[in-house]
Amino acid sequence: MHIKNRISRLYSNIDGELDAILIKNGDEPFIDANFFYVTGLSKGLFEGSIALIHSKGDTDLIVSELESQSAEKSPANILVYKDKEEYEEILKKSFKGLKKIGINFSALNLLHFRKLSNLYPKIEFVDISSALSKTRAVKDGNEISKIKKACSIADTVMESIPDSLSENMREYEIAAEINYLLQKFGADKPAFDTISSFGKNTAEPHYTHGNTTLNRGDFVLFDFGARFEKYNSDMTRTLVYGVAKREQKLMHEIVKKAQQIGFDALKPGIKGSEVHERVQNYIDGTQFKGRFIHSTGHSLGLDVHDGWIGFSKDCDIELQENMVLTVEPGIYVPGFGGVRIEDDVLIRKDGAEILTNSSRQLIEV
Amino acid sequence: MHIKNRISRLYSNIDGELDAILIKNGDEPFIDANFFYVTGLSKGLFEGSIALIHSKGDTDLIVSELESQSAEKSPANILVYKDKEEYEEILKKSFKGLKKIGINFSALNLLHFRKLSNLYPKIEFVDISSALSKTRAVKDGNEISKIKKACSIADTVMESIPDSLSENMREYEIAAEINYLLQKFGADKPAFDTISSFGKNTAEPHYTHGNTTLNRGDFVLFDFGARFEKYNSDMTRTLVYGVAKREQKLMHEIVKKAQQIGFDALKPGIKGSEVHERVQNYIDGTQFKGRFIHSTGHSLGLDVHDGWIGFSKDCDIELQENMVLTVEPGIYVPGFGGVRIEDDVLIRKDGAEILTNSSRQLIEV
Repeated sequence: MHIKNRISRLYSNIDGELDAILIKNGDEPFIDANFFYVTGLSKGLFEGSIALIHSKGDTDLIVSELESQSAEKSPANILVYKDKEEYEEILKKSFKGLKKIGINFSALNLLHFRKLSNLYPKIEFVDISSALSKTRAVKDGNEISKIKKACSIADTVMESIPDSLSENMREYEIAAEINYLLQKFGADKPAFDTISSFGKNTAEPHYTHGNTTLNRGDFVLFDFGARFEKYNSDMTRTLVYGVAKREQKLMHEIVKKAQQIGFDALKPGIKGSEVHERVQNYIDGTQFKGRFIHSTGHSLGLDVHDGWIGFSKDCDIELQENMVLTVEPGIYVPGFGGVRIEDDVLIRKDGAEILTNSSRQLIEV
Repeated sequence: MHIKNRISRLYSNIDGELDAILIKNGDEPFIDANFFYVTGLSKGLFEGSIALIHSKGDTDLIVSELESQSAEKSPANILVYKDKEEYEEILKKSFKGLKKIGINFSALNLLHFRKLSNLYPKIEFVDISSALSKTRAVKDGNEISKIKKACSIADTVMESIPDSLSENMREYEIAAEINYLLQKFGADKPAFDTISSFGKNTAEPHYTHGNTTLNRGDFVLFDFGARFEKYNSDMTRTLVYGVAKREQKLMHEIVKKAQQIGFDALKPGIKGSEVHERVQNYIDGTQFKGRFIHSTGHSLGLDVHDGWIGFSKDCDIELQENMVLTVEPGIYVPGFGGVRIEDDVLIRKDGAEILTNSSRQLIEV
């Protein structure tokens, strides 16, 4: 049922009439999350598979023999091909009578598009990438429960990290430990390349991990998430290994306050840019003016950066109920270190529900 | 120097004259390995970055501020933009005088292509995806040393797995352990979703891992690889947990023999299809006729399936010196189990150098 609702919301977000929507998945790494969104499939890769969603309501799922068994978990009509001839035969039947088809310009590559338009020169293909992003920004119950599970796995991992730290450990060792724990606690895989940085490296928001060893007094920053049935979480905590210095405590306190200002701003109707401004203005009113150098957060779901809406200065889109986003202010002092705290939130009618809940207090290990 | 050679080999594989080659990287997960191939960069994501390789020899690397520091590891001219205006200004200067540009149709999406062709309606954009695959199929020394490192990490992990097995462990626990060990021994990440399957599940070549527990007498199949500085390894071993039954021993023996037939066939000049036929004919001459249901191997490098050449019935491309491929015959008996043995090989003038070397004997744990 939730798939039917997604499809009807998707169609309602498209300007003009279409006969069908075609989502063609690519080959690794070019996997289009929209394929899983419209089919409801939560396992497998489905490289090269096609979902053809007719405006009249039924969906054809065109898959190779290798995927036929996994495809059965989708409510669509499953059409299996063995070779190129059968593939084109199936397309021919499925495309019969279609004149105007929506495709995802932000994922389909030129090679696949040329093949399609050569096979069907009379069909008009139009871009529906914005409608897809817009539809996906608002989550349904099925999605929210998967995101919550991904968040709770990340929480469990975050809570067990302090016990794993010991002097002279290397950043990549902790990253490996985090990835291990994510999978042990039920994630399909890490949501993205786990960030594990120590000391001065914490001042670089884009740093992932390296050989640096852990020393007493270091800031320790972890930014990671779980992927559960294709849905992601994304959280960050900054700890101090040892006793925190005054400056470290102050930075952490200000970031925590900034995040709370973000949380408090969240309700349907507020613009993404306004949330960002409130958080940034607060930090810029402290001695760390100019040290918050990225956006305050992003939409989260099947992709870690789920697109369309976020908390940045250029985002004039308004929050709606059931959007899921991250709130992740930070302060970065080159040569000294950085603090970022990031949590995932669900927009409710009356405010934000925070989905990640491991302690936001400054932990001194 | 190796980058210059790559570029000149790439140009020589393109039919017709071009003024430049443009590789535009996408956003996660749409990362185009070719961007890293032509720039020599081995760390970072470089989302949205552009490499513009002029036919006259110099390369412009167009990156956002966030990537400017990481970009310095490339020998290219680094052009940094802060915003959309600066980006378009840089493009304008870099594109000056260019009339015909080669782009990668197999990665560039329609949205990016439309933007480019709207900005530069007079420039002719042509597809160079085949030339890229053809060039990348033959590895240079720099690539071979990275692949060898990725292979040696996988070997080390494979050798330590038998010690990690215990009764009633679940498939996903071992997968998590393998991924942990890969990173601990120096991999940037697993090359792909690690396959860890027990018992009857080993009969499904596309199975990754699930909740199944390990029982005495089970076949245990591991298929994984390391990614090291963007380059991948890919190996498979099949063990028996406990004492192997006669049938299990026989299956393993035949697959090992089949793989050796593959190895022995490898030398410059032989067609991909012929290698596959020899391996398949051998298996089909045993009692397991029809149980080898996939291709014998694939090209390996920056992508796990590096494209263009492989060992399948339709591949009439001839092997060349310095190609790197996998040799992975298997036998799959539904309801009973499967055996696959996979190793990575480098084609040398006089035969194959096997790059993965952990024991191919049947291990009984």
